Amino acid sequence: MEIEEGSVTRILMGVSESTIKGYPHASISSRGAFDWTIQKIVRYNTSAFKLLFLHVQVPDEDGFDDMDSIYASPEDFKSLTDRDRAKGLHLLAYFVTRCHEIGVSCEAWIKRGDPKEVICHEVKRVQPDLLVVGSRGLGPFQRVFVGTVSEFCVKHAECPVITIKRSADEAPQDPVDD
Amino acid sequence: MEIEEGSVTRILMGVSESTIKGYPHASISSRGAFDWTIQKIVRYNTSAFKLLFLHVQVPDEDGFDDMDSIYASPEDFKSLTDRDRAKGLHLLAYFVTRCHEIGVSCEAWIKRGDPKEVICHEVKRVQPDLLVVGSRGLGPFQRVFVGTVSEFCVKHAECPVITIKRSADEAPQDPVDD
Repeated sequence: MEIEEGSVTRILMGVSESTIKGYPHASISSRGAFDWTIQKIVRYNTSAFKLLFLHVQVPDEDGFDDMDSIYASPEDFKSLTDRDRAKGLHLLAYFVTRCHEIGVSCEAWIKRGDPKEVICHEVKRVQPDLLVVGSRGLGPFQRVFVGTVSEFCVKHAECPVITIKRSADEAPQDPVDD
Repeated sequence: MEIEEGSVTRILMGVSESTIKGYPHASISSRGAFDWTIQKIVRYNTSAFKLLFLHVQVPDEDGFDDMDSIYASPEDFKSLTDRDRAKGLHLLAYFVTRCHEIGVSCEAWIKRGDPKEVICHEVKRVQPDLLVVGSRGLGPFQRVFVGTVSEFCVKHAECPVITIKRSADEAPQDPVDD
Protein backbone atom coordinates (compact mmCIF):
# COMPACT_ATOMS: atom_id res chain seq x y z
CA MET A 1 0.00 0.00 0.00
CA GLU A 2 1.35 3.39 -1.01
CA ILE A 3 1.20 6.53 1.07
CA GLU A 4 0.70 9.48 -1.26
CA GLU A 5 4.02 11.21 -1.99
CA GLY A 6 4.37 14.57 -0.25
CA SER A 7 0.98 14.25 1.42
CA VAL A 8 0.42 15.18 5.04
CA THR A 9 -2.41 14.08 7.30
CA ARG A 10 -4.51 17.17 8.00
CA ILE A 11 -6.17 17.14 11.41
CA LEU A 12 -8.85 19.71 12.16
CA MET A 13 -9.32 20.52 15.85
CA GLY A 14 -12.24 22.49 17.20
CA VAL A 15 -10.91 24.50 20.15
CA SER A 16 -12.81 26.50 22.74
CA GLU A 17 -12.17 28.88 25.60
CA SER A 18 -12.33 27.87 29.21
CA THR A 19 -15.57 28.70 30.99
CA ILE A 20 -13.99 28.83 34.43
CA LYS A 21 -10.92 31.02 34.57
CA GLY A 22 -11.19 34.77 35.00
CA TYR A 23 -8.69 35.32 32.23
CA PRO A 24 -9.22 33.70 28.83
CA HIS A 25 -7.51 30.33 28.41
CA ALA A 26 -7.99 27.25 26.31
CA SER A 27 -10.60 24.94 27.81
CA ILE A 28 -9.44 21.84 29.68
CA SER A 29 -10.95 19.56 27.05
CA SER A 30 -9.34 21.46 24.15
CA ARG A 31 -5.92 21.19 25.76
CA GLY A 32 -6.53 17.51 26.50
CA ALA A 33 -7.51 16.83 22.89
CA PHE A 34 -4.40 18.64 21.65
CA ASP A 35 -2.04 16.81 24.03
CA TRP A 36 -3.57 13.47 23.10
CA THR A 37 -3.22 14.17 19.36
CA ILE A 38 0.46 15.04 19.71
CA GLN A 39 1.33 12.19 22.07
CA LYS A 40 -0.64 9.40 20.43
CA ILE A 41 -0.92 10.30 16.73
CA VAL A 42 1.71 12.83 15.66
CA ARG A 43 4.42 11.59 18.05
CA TYR A 44 7.86 12.50 16.63
CA ASN A 45 6.61 12.27 13.04
CA THR A 46 5.95 16.03 12.94
CA SER A 47 6.55 16.55 9.22
CA ALA A 48 3.75 14.12 8.30
CA PHE A 49 0.97 16.11 9.94
CA LYS A 50 -0.63 19.52 9.74
CA LEU A 51 -2.95 20.76 12.47
CA LEU A 52 -5.84 23.07 11.62
CA PHE A 53 -7.33 24.94 14.60
CA LEU A 54 -10.84 26.27 14.34
CA HIS A 55 -12.33 28.43 17.07
CA VAL A 56 -16.01 29.17 16.75
CA GLN A 57 -17.06 32.40 18.39
CA VAL A 58 -20.68 32.46 19.50
CA PRO A 59 -22.11 35.73 18.16
CA ASP A 60 -23.45 37.43 21.27
CA GLU A 61 -20.99 40.33 21.19
CA ASP A 62 -20.11 43.24 18.94
CA GLY A 63 -19.60 42.40 15.30
CA PHE A 64 -16.07 41.56 14.29
CA ASP A 65 -15.35 41.66 10.65
CA ASP A 66 -11.91 40.16 10.10
CA MET A 67 -12.77 36.58 10.94
CA ASP A 68 -11.27 35.02 7.89
CA SER A 69 -7.60 35.66 8.67
CA ILE A 70 -5.38 32.60 8.94
CA TYR A 71 -2.69 32.43 11.62
CA ALA A 72 0.20 30.03 11.27
CA SER A 73 3.11 31.23 13.39
CA PRO A 74 3.70 32.86 16.81
CA GLU A 75 4.69 36.10 15.04
CA ASP A 76 1.13 36.44 13.81
CA PHE A 77 0.10 37.27 17.37
CA LYS A 78 2.78 39.85 18.22
CA SER A 79 0.52 42.73 19.19
CA LEU A 80 -2.71 41.37 20.64
CA THR A 81 -5.13 44.04 21.78
CA ASP A 82 -7.99 43.59 24.23
CA ARG A 83 -10.29 43.44 21.26
CA ASP A 84 -8.20 40.60 19.81
CA ARG A 85 -8.43 38.74 23.13
CA ALA A 86 -12.19 39.15 23.14
CA LYS A 87 -12.26 37.63 19.67
CA GLY A 88 -10.47 34.52 20.85
CA LEU A 89 -7.16 35.24 19.13
CA HIS A 90 -5.27 34.49 22.38
CA LEU A 91 -6.71 31.00 22.11
CA LEU A 92 -5.30 30.48 18.62
CA ALA A 93 -2.00 32.00 19.82
CA TYR A 94 -1.76 29.31 22.51
CA PHE A 95 -2.14 26.40 20.07
CA VAL A 96 -0.08 27.95 17.26
CA THR A 97 2.79 28.63 19.69
CA ARG A 98 2.67 25.08 21.01
CA CYS A 99 2.77 23.69 17.46
CA HIS A 100 5.72 25.94 16.70
CA GLU A 101 7.62 24.61 19.75
CA ILE A 102 6.87 21.01 18.78
CA GLY A 103 7.74 21.62 15.13
CA VAL A 104 4.44 20.65 13.55
CA SER A 105 2.96 22.98 10.95
CA CYS A 106 -0.45 24.49 11.57
CA GLU A 107 -3.09 26.98 10.57
CA ALA A 108 -5.68 28.59 12.80
CA TRP A 109 -8.75 30.66 12.16
CA ILE A 110 -11.95 31.93 13.75
CA LYS A 111 -15.52 31.69 12.53
CA ARG A 112 -18.73 32.87 14.13
CA GLY A 113 -21.91 30.90 14.60
CA ASP A 114 -23.23 27.78 16.29
CA PRO A 115 -20.05 25.75 17.04
CA LYS A 116 -21.42 22.35 16.00
CA GLU A 117 -22.87 23.65 12.73
CA VAL A 118 -19.80 25.71 11.89
CA ILE A 119 -17.39 22.84 12.62
CA CYS A 120 -19.30 20.50 10.29
CA HIS A 121 -19.50 23.23 7.65
CA GLU A 122 -15.74 23.82 7.88
CA VAL A 123 -15.09 20.07 7.59
CA LYS A 124 -17.00 20.14 4.32
CA ARG A 125 -15.04 23.17 3.14
CA VAL A 126 -11.44 22.23 4.13
CA GLN A 127 -11.84 18.41 3.90
CA PRO A 128 -9.45 17.36 6.69
CA ASP A 129 -8.45 13.71 7.07
CA LEU A 130 -9.62 13.69 10.66
CA LEU A 131 -11.58 15.90 13.05
CA VAL A 132 -10.57 15.88 16.73
CA VAL A 133 -12.91 17.38 19.30
CA GLY A 134 -12.59 17.49 23.05
CA SER A 135 -15.55 16.60 25.21
CA ARG A 136 -16.34 17.15 28.87
CA GLY A 137 -17.41 13.53 29.09
CA LEU A 138 -20.66 14.39 30.82
CA GLY A 139 -23.21 11.76 31.81
CA PRO A 140 -26.55 11.44 30.01
CA PHE A 141 -28.39 13.55 32.60
CA GLN A 142 -26.03 16.52 32.34
CA ARG A 143 -25.95 16.25 28.55
CA VAL A 144 -29.65 16.91 28.27
CA PHE A 145 -29.11 20.44 29.50
CA VAL A 146 -25.88 21.45 27.87
CA GLY A 147 -25.97 19.59 24.54
CA THR A 148 -22.72 18.37 23.13
CA VAL A 149 -20.81 19.57 20.13
CA SER A 150 -18.89 16.31 19.90
CA GLU A 151 -21.96 14.08 19.57
CA PHE A 152 -23.32 16.25 16.78
CA CYS A 153 -19.98 16.17 14.93
CA VAL A 154 -19.64 12.39 15.25
CA LYS A 155 -23.02 12.09 13.53
CA HIS A 156 -22.78 14.82 10.93
CA ALA A 157 -19.17 15.65 10.06
CA GLU A 158 -18.13 14.32 6.66
CA CYS A 159 -14.82 12.89 7.86
CA PRO A 160 -13.67 10.52 10.60
CA VAL A 161 -14.04 12.05 14.06
CA ILE A 162 -12.26 11.33 17.34
CA THR A 163 -13.78 12.57 20.56
CA ILE A 164 -11.27 12.96 23.37
CA LYS A 165 -13.05 12.88 26.70
CA ARG A 166 -11.68 14.99 29.51
CA SER A 167 -10.11 12.73 32.12
CA ALA A 168 -12.00 12.52 35.41
CA ASP A 169 -9.10 13.91 37.44
CA GLU A 170 -9.08 17.08 35.34
CA ALA A 171 -12.78 17.84 35.72
CA PRO A 172 -13.48 21.09 37.58
CA GLN A 173 -15.77 21.24 40.60
CA ASP A 174 -18.78 21.83 38.38
CA PRO A 175 -18.34 19.30 35.55
CA VAL A 176 -20.37 21.49 33.19
CA ASP A 177 -17.47 23.96 33.39
CA ASP A 178 -14.46 23.34 31.17
CA MET B 1 5.63 18.01 26.03
CA GLU B 2 7.33 14.62 26.35
CA ILE B 3 6.34 11.48 24.52
CA GLU B 4 6.91 8.53 26.82
CA GLU B 5 10.25 6.85 26.09
CA GLY B 6 9.87 3.50 24.32
CA SER B 7 6.08 3.77 24.27
CA VAL B 8 4.06 2.84 21.22
CA THR B 9 0.53 3.91 20.34
CA ARG B 10 -1.64 0.80 20.58
CA ILE B 11 -4.58 0.80 18.17
CA LEU B 12 -7.30 -1.81 18.60
CA MET B 13 -9.26 -2.63 15.45
CA GLY B 14 -12.46 -4.65 15.44
CA VAL B 15 -12.46 -6.66 12.21
CA SER B 16 -15.26 -8.68 10.64
CA GLU B 17 -15.83 -11.08 7.78
CA SER B 18 -17.50 -10.09 4.56
CA THR B 19 -21.17 -10.97 4.28
CA ILE B 20 -21.13 -11.11 0.50
CA LYS B 21 -18.34 -13.22 -0.89
CA GLY B 22 -18.71 -16.96 -1.24
CA TYR B 23 -15.32 -17.54 0.30
CA PRO B 24 -14.40 -15.88 3.59
CA HIS B 25 -12.74 -12.47 3.23
CA ALA B 26 -12.35 -9.39 5.37
CA SER B 27 -15.38 -7.11 5.12
CA ILE B 28 -15.14 -4.01 2.94
CA SER B 29 -15.46 -1.74 5.97
CA SER B 30 -12.74 -3.61 7.93
CA ARG B 31 -10.32 -3.30 5.03
CA GLY B 32 -11.22 0.36 4.62
CA ALA B 33 -10.60 1.05 8.32
CA PHE B 34 -7.24 -0.72 8.14
CA ASP B 35 -6.11 1.14 5.00
CA TRP B 36 -7.16 4.46 6.48
CA THR B 37 -5.27 3.78 9.72
CA ILE B 38 -2.06 2.94 7.87
CA GLN B 39 -2.29 5.80 5.37
CA LYS B 40 -3.43 8.58 7.69
CA ILE B 41 -2.12 7.69 11.15
CA VAL B 42 0.75 5.18 11.04
CA ARG B 43 2.19 6.45 7.74
CA TYR B 44 5.93 5.58 7.59
CA ASN B 45 6.29 5.80 11.36
CA THR B 46 5.77 2.04 11.72
CA SER B 47 7.87 1.54 14.85
CA ALA B 48 5.70 3.93 16.85
CA PHE B 49 2.51 1.91 16.52
CA LYS B 50 1.18 -1.52 17.36
CA LEU B 51 -2.06 -2.78 15.85
CA LEU B 52 -4.31 -5.11 17.83
CA PHE B 53 -6.88 -7.02 15.76
CA LEU B 54 -9.95 -8.40 17.45
CA HIS B 55 -12.40 -10.59 15.60
CA VAL B 56 -15.60 -11.38 17.43
CA GLN B 57 -17.20 -14.64 16.39
CA VAL B 58 -20.96 -14.73 16.87
CA PRO B 59 -21.66 -18.03 18.67
CA ASP B 60 -24.14 -19.78 16.40
CA GLU B 61 -21.80 -22.61 15.44
CA ASP B 62 -20.05 -25.53 17.10
CA GLY B 63 -18.11 -24.66 20.20
CA PHE B 64 -14.46 -23.78 19.64
CA ASP B 65 -12.28 -23.88 22.67
CA ASP B 66 -8.95 -22.31 21.72
CA MET B 67 -10.16 -18.75 21.36
CA ASP B 68 -7.53 -17.11 23.51
CA SER B 69 -4.53 -17.73 21.26
CA ILE B 70 -2.66 -14.65 20.08
CA TYR B 71 -1.35 -14.46 16.50
CA ALA B 72 1.40 -12.02 15.61
CA SER B 73 3.18 -13.19 12.46
CA PRO B 74 2.33 -14.84 9.12
CA GLU B 75 4.01 -18.07 10.31
CA ASP B 76 1.28 -18.44 12.93
CA PHE B 77 -1.12 -19.29 10.13
CA LYS B 78 0.98 -21.85 8.23
CA SER B 79 -1.43 -24.77 8.32
CA LEU B 80 -4.97 -23.45 8.32
CA THR B 81 -7.62 -26.16 8.30
CA ASP B 82 -11.24 -25.76 7.26
CA ARG B 83 -12.10 -25.62 10.92
CA ASP B 84 -9.65 -22.74 11.39
CA ARG B 85 -11.22 -20.91 8.47
CA ALA B 86 -14.67 -21.35 9.99
CA LYS B 87 -13.34 -19.81 13.19
CA GLY B 88 -12.23 -16.67 11.37
CA LEU B 89 -8.50 -17.36 11.57
CA HIS B 90 -8.14 -16.62 7.82
CA LEU B 91 -9.39 -13.13 8.67
CA LEU B 92 -6.66 -12.58 11.24
CA ALA B 93 -4.13 -14.06 8.78
CA TYR B 94 -5.08 -11.39 6.24
CA PHE B 95 -4.43 -8.47 8.61
CA VAL B 96 -1.37 -9.97 10.30
CA THR B 97 0.23 -10.62 6.90
CA ARG B 98 -0.47 -7.08 5.75
CA CYS B 99 1.08 -5.67 8.93
CA HIS B 100 4.10 -7.89 8.38
CA GLU B 101 4.53 -6.54 4.84
CA ILE B 102 4.22 -2.95 6.02
CA GLY B 103 6.53 -3.54 8.97
CA VAL B 104 4.20 -2.60 11.79
CA SER B 105 3.96 -4.93 14.77
CA CYS B 106 0.63 -6.48 15.62
CA GLU B 107 -1.33 -9.00 17.63
CA ALA B 108 -4.58 -10.66 16.68
CA TRP B 109 -7.09 -12.75 18.54
CA ILE B 110 -10.64 -14.08 18.44
CA LYS B 111 -13.37 -13.87 21.05
CA ARG B 112 -16.92 -15.10 20.94
CA GLY B 113 -20.04 -13.18 21.85
CA ASP B 114 -21.98 -10.09 20.86
CA PRO B 115 -19.46 -8.02 18.86
CA LYS B 116 -20.29 -4.63 20.37
CA GLU B 117 -20.22 -5.93 23.95
CA VAL B 118 -17.05 -7.94 23.43
CA ILE B 119 -15.20 -5.06 21.76
CA CYS B 120 -15.99 -2.74 24.69
CA HIS B 121 -15.03 -5.45 27.15
CA GLU B 122 -11.71 -5.99 25.38
CA VAL B 123 -11.04 -2.23 25.37
CA LYS B 124 -11.40 -2.31 29.14
CA ARG B 125 -9.09 -5.31 29.38
CA VAL B 126 -6.26 -4.34 26.98
CA GLN B 127 -6.57 -0.53 27.35
CA PRO B 128 -5.58 0.54 23.84
CA ASP B 129 -4.88 4.21 23.08
CA LEU B 130 -7.45 4.21 20.30
CA LEU B 131 -10.21 1.97 18.94
CA VAL B 132 -10.82 2.00 15.18
CA VAL B 133 -14.02 0.46 13.82
CA GLY B 134 -15.29 0.34 10.28
CA SER B 135 -18.89 1.17 9.54
CA ARG B 136 -21.15 0.60 6.56
CA GLY B 137 -22.23 4.21 6.83
CA LEU B 138 -25.92 3.30 6.60
CA GLY B 139 -28.65 5.90 6.78
CA PRO B 140 -30.96 6.16 9.82
CA PHE B 141 -33.68 4.03 8.23
CA GLN B 142 -31.39 1.10 7.48
CA ARG B 143 -29.72 1.37 10.88
CA VAL B 144 -32.97 0.65 12.69
CA PHE B 145 -32.94 -2.88 11.35
CA VAL B 146 -29.30 -3.83 11.46
CA GLY B 147 -28.01 -1.96 14.52
CA THR B 148 -24.50 -0.68 14.45
CA VAL B 149 -21.50 -1.84 16.37
CA SER B 150 -19.70 1.44 15.78
CA GLU B 151 -22.37 3.63 17.38
CA PHE B 152 -22.40 1.46 20.48
CA CYS B 153 -18.60 1.59 20.76
CA VAL B 154 -18.47 5.38 20.32
CA LYS B 155 -20.83 5.64 23.29
CA HIS B 156 -19.50 2.92 25.55
CA ALA B 157 -15.83 2.13 24.84
CA GLU B 158 -13.49 3.48 27.49
CA CYS B 159 -11.00 4.94 25.03
CA PRO B 160 -11.13 7.33 22.07
CA VAL B 161 -12.90 5.79 19.07
CA ILE B 162 -12.68 6.51 15.35
CA THR B 163 -15.38 5.25 13.05
CA ILE B 164 -14.28 4.89 9.44
CA LYS B 165 -17.29 4.93 7.15
CA ARG B 166 -17.20 2.83 4.03
CA SER B 167 -16.88 5.10 1.01
CA ALA B 168 -19.98 5.28 -1.17
CA ASP B 169 -18.18 3.90 -4.23
CA GLU B 170 -17.23 0.75 -2.34
CA ALA B 171 -20.74 -0.06 -1.14
CA PRO B 172 -22.13 -3.32 -2.56
CA GLN B 173 -25.48 -3.53 -4.33
CA ASP B 174 -27.27 -4.17 -1.05
CA PRO B 175 -25.72 -1.62 1.34
CA VAL B 176 -26.55 -3.81 4.34
CA ASP B 177 -23.97 -6.24 2.93
CA ASP B 178 -20.32 -5.57 3.69
